[in-house]
Amino acid sequence: MTKCMNLRSLSKTISQIENDRPKSLKILSELYAKKRGVPILGITGLPGAGKSTLVDHLIHHLRGQSKTVGVIAIDPSSPFSGGALLGDRIRMQRHATDEGVFIRSLGSRGAHGGLSQATHDAALCLDAYGFDQIIIESVGVGQTELDIMSLATTTVVVLVPEAGDAVQTLKAGLMEIADIFVVNKADRPGAEQMKIMLEAMVAMDSKMGTWLAPVLLTKADKGSGIAELWKAVLQHGEILKKDPAHAKHQEALRRAQFLEMCGEAVKQHLKEKLISDKKLKAILEKVAKEEVNPYEALKKILPSFVRRGRGR
Amino acid sequence: MTKCMNLRSLSKTISQIENDRPKSLKILSELYAKKRGVPILGITGLPGAGKSTLVDHLIHHLRGQSKTVGVIAIDPSSPFSGGALLGDRIRMQRHATDEGVFIRSLGSRGAHGGLSQATHDAALCLDAYGFDQIIIESVGVGQTELDIMSLATTTVVVLVPEAGDAVQTLKAGLMEIADIFVVNKADRPGAEQMKIMLEAMVAMDSKMGTWLAPVLLTKADKGSGIAELWKAVLQHGEILKKDPAHAKHQEALRRAQFLEMCGEAVKQHLKEKLISDKKLKAILEKVAKEEVNPYEALKKILPSFVRRGRGR
Repeated sequence: MTKCMNLRSLSKTISQIENDRPKSLKILSELYAKKRGVPILGITGLPGAGKSTLVDHLIHHLRGQSKTVGVIAIDPSSPFSGGALLGDRIRMQRHATDEGVFIRSLGSRGAHGGLSQATHDAALCLDAYGFDQIIIESVGVGQTELDIMSLATTTVVVLVPEAGDAVQTLKAGLMEIADIFVVNKADRPGAEQMKIMLEAMVAMDSKMGTWLAPVLLTKADKGSGIAELWKAVLQHGEILKKDPAHAKHQEALRRAQFLEMCGEAVKQHLKEKLISDKKLKAILEKVAKEEVNPYEALKKILPSFVRRGRGR
Repeated sequence: MTKCMNLRSLSKTISQIENDRPKSLKILSELYAKKRGVPILGITGLPGAGKSTLVDHLIHHLRGQSKTVGVIAIDPSSPFSGGALLGDRIRMQRHATDEGVFIRSLGSRGAHGGLSQATHDAALCLDAYGFDQIIIESVGVGQTELDIMSLATTTVVVLVPEAGDAVQTLKAGLMEIADIFVVNKADRPGAEQMKIMLEAMVAMDSKMGTWLAPVLLTKADKGSGIAELWKAVLQHGEILKKDPAHAKHQEALRRAQFLEMCGEAVKQHLKEKLISDKKLKAILEKVAKEEVNPYEALKKILPSFVRRGRGR
């Protein structure tokens, strides 16, 4: 981090964008101009896998190297999100007074479809504000939550030794997004077998010729295996830099993000119109009361919104 | 079910709507006209709670009463979705040749934000085609997956006796959506304590004055507790019919669904324009290559899409 930053103003900026995105385009544009392309580490896995403890120790490890860390937590069961057991919350407190660490939780329900966007924006804020490393912790189930991992430069999938859990996890689509596997709570029975099974799966299903996802054993509650994990993250980052497929992938990601951002903007605009415009509001209320067929109503409304827009 | 239906044509209709919604408005409108308001039972809970086994036995129970059942599975780990262990799949086969049962899995990744809409549409299809009962099975984590449960008339949250699991589940937002709790795998230690704990929580946090969510014990793998569960579902349905708050809630739901549907329609329209229109496509490519600031590009594009639309 090059300059002394103001964490309170950072927090305010993220909230402002989250609460009123349409009015925050100017801020987002300025942040984008300051963006440096900080690597994003994604940590995902089923509830109870120990993701937050792992993140806690990763922060500690990075702080030991004087690196500043910005964390975005999207796991509803994460202690970062404030929903956890007292023990967890106290454990996390050790970073509370550290100016080199910033933790933000996202993912309150109700922000329909807006969670991916909010995470993207928050990551942009952390990047522009000058953190050395960004970490996104997200629960490894759910369409939105899995999609968010596409923001990560490197994605770590955290499992526990119980075999059933692993099977569930892999079924849930985690296999394809893993750059690194971590078998956490490795002092439990079955850790070694799990490692062997995962390594066999990785060997069969190598998503990239240049990188075979390693399988690491950690005991996050004791801080064991953290240094090795961080080493693997750095190695993966180095490989990516030399991989032309990665640059193509980043381009495709930016394309998809822009399409999504534009689409969301018009969607929000129409939703507001439907509530504020008298005529449209009347249709909405008829639909709510089942007095008109919603699909017929849509057919009526749509043309006035989509006729224009043929270029600029 | 009043008439003999053609399951193959139902399957085709759902696929057609899923693949090209903008062109399916006519079909949706016709389906809506046939809609009868069939009750929807939602089954949710963490992966591994035994949701699918429970659904399997519920189907069996309802078939015993000659009721026809349509199931939508949105759990990526559900055997209905095809990702399960062989044993599960074979177990489910017992309904494969039954014309009174239709099972559809949804939730392939990639359909950004479209999962709620797809579930809504599929439920409409099942309703219009004449099933007596609709069941939606959804994994109990993830923003989209939890939101989908708002479609359900009655929501059953399935837990297992392990306390950690319960705590995680309740933190993840399942507490507020539960109309009925099921402690499944009730032959495991801790089932009774879990029941007592849940009952205490329900008593403290009654979301509706007229209904206190009951806590039931089941052993779904043995079919035990299923009849009691179904009885509770029916009781909850009866209570709702007399509850004026429920009618209000349904109205609010239809309002939100219509807003979402209109919003999604214009969003898709804009996304297609951005790819098909030459000028817009050029901007998109510049954004992808980081040659222009995406927020500046959005500011440029937006006005031509949102200026109109002041009523009809």
